[in-house]
Amino acid sequence: MARAAAKVPATEVGESTERVLQILSESARLFATNGYDGTSMRDIAEACGISKSLLYHHFADKDEIFARIALGSTRELYHFVFDRLPEGATPSERIRAFMVATGEYFQRYRWAWLASTSAFWNDPEQRRQKERLMWRDRYEGLIRTLIQQAIDAGELRPLDVPLAGRLVLSALNWMHRWYKPEQGLPASQIADAYFDMIFRGLKAD
Amino acid sequence: MARAAAKVPATEVGESTERVLQILSESARLFATNGYDGTSMRDIAEACGISKSLLYHHFADKDEIFARIALGSTRELYHFVFDRLPEGATPSERIRAFMVATGEYFQRYRWAWLASTSAFWNDPEQRRQKERLMWRDRYEGLIRTLIQQAIDAGELRPLDVPLAGRLVLSALNWMHRWYKPEQGLPASQIADAYFDMIFRGLKAD
Repeated sequence: MARAAAKVPATEVGESTERVLQILSESARLFATNGYDGTSMRDIAEACGISKSLLYHHFADKDEIFARIALGSTRELYHFVFDRLPEGATPSERIRAFMVATGEYFQRYRWAWLASTSAFWNDPEQRRQKERLMWRDRYEGLIRTLIQQAIDAGELRPLDVPLAGRLVLSALNWMHRWYKPEQGLPASQIADAYFDMIFRGLKAD
Repeated sequence: MARAAAKVPATEVGESTERVLQILSESARLFATNGYDGTSMRDIAEACGISKSLLYHHFADKDEIFARIALGSTRELYHFVFDRLPEGATPSERIRAFMVATGEYFQRYRWAWLASTSAFWNDPEQRRQKERLMWRDRYEGLIRTLIQQAIDAGELRPLDVPLAGRLVLSALNWMHRWYKPEQGLPASQIADAYFDMIFRGLKAD
């Protein structure tokens, strides 16, 4: 229940949800451009083309908007990816699915992704910061588990599992620094190509 | 001459150079923590344990410190890596050397690295921003050239060269988000392990 209430990328899209998503999206963009301190509730209202009173109808203050973006996006990433791991597939195929799903998430909720990985702002509240890190750790734990399972199944060679997990996450996480949504491959296809490179290696057969 | 003057990681270390490096290091840390706008010349002087007048003896203003860190570190990275590519080695060995040298640079000049990759602050001056990007592009162009040469030599399979280059750079660039200098492997060894994973692939032989 609590989870559904704080969900960022809503699945049911009504008039009000659309509005909330617009507010979160514009806020994330403004925070990323001007910083948390450099963004006011007035700026957010103006960017959304709505009155300040309508903005306050949805959110008590800037901090509530921040928390919703930051926590929601990290938790959602985990669930989004987890839900897309095919049951009964081989461990390697599940690693591929993990990567492709992360690319898909990145593509669909790019603003939330930028907000959650952005180094622009740190959450002033220790407790929320911890909760975000907990979800980030679960996400990282998931790829490590998949890699370990693939090694156990003899599909991957014996590896430094945390480091191999970091290699996978680095490729995915760095996309936000260069990816242009309007040109080139969709992020999910890039993630798929990365899987192929990392799994098979770059060297000639 | 101009290049030597703006060099950040100095090779000749005198009393004054040490001081300048300390100022640049502390400034980079403060900018990264509190943002460019949130850092004053007074803060920098205090962090260095020096008077404001001594600080102004070395730098005219905050912007000069910023420019020195940002431009210097990007240009230096390129030269540092380029100088460490072994002549006459195979293309693949040169890719490994590129990665290991980047890890070494990261380790030695971590503050400058953080400053140059930090998303906290954008250079207000268009011209300097362009110059930084030019060096960043040359650095990226270098790994693409090495990959293309390795493909031409039959050492790597035919690949999307820009994407393969991004995979390599992603692994290296993301280190600053998780690397703890006081624990685990040195960054150069991590880069070497990444080369092995990317070159041979994770899959079992």
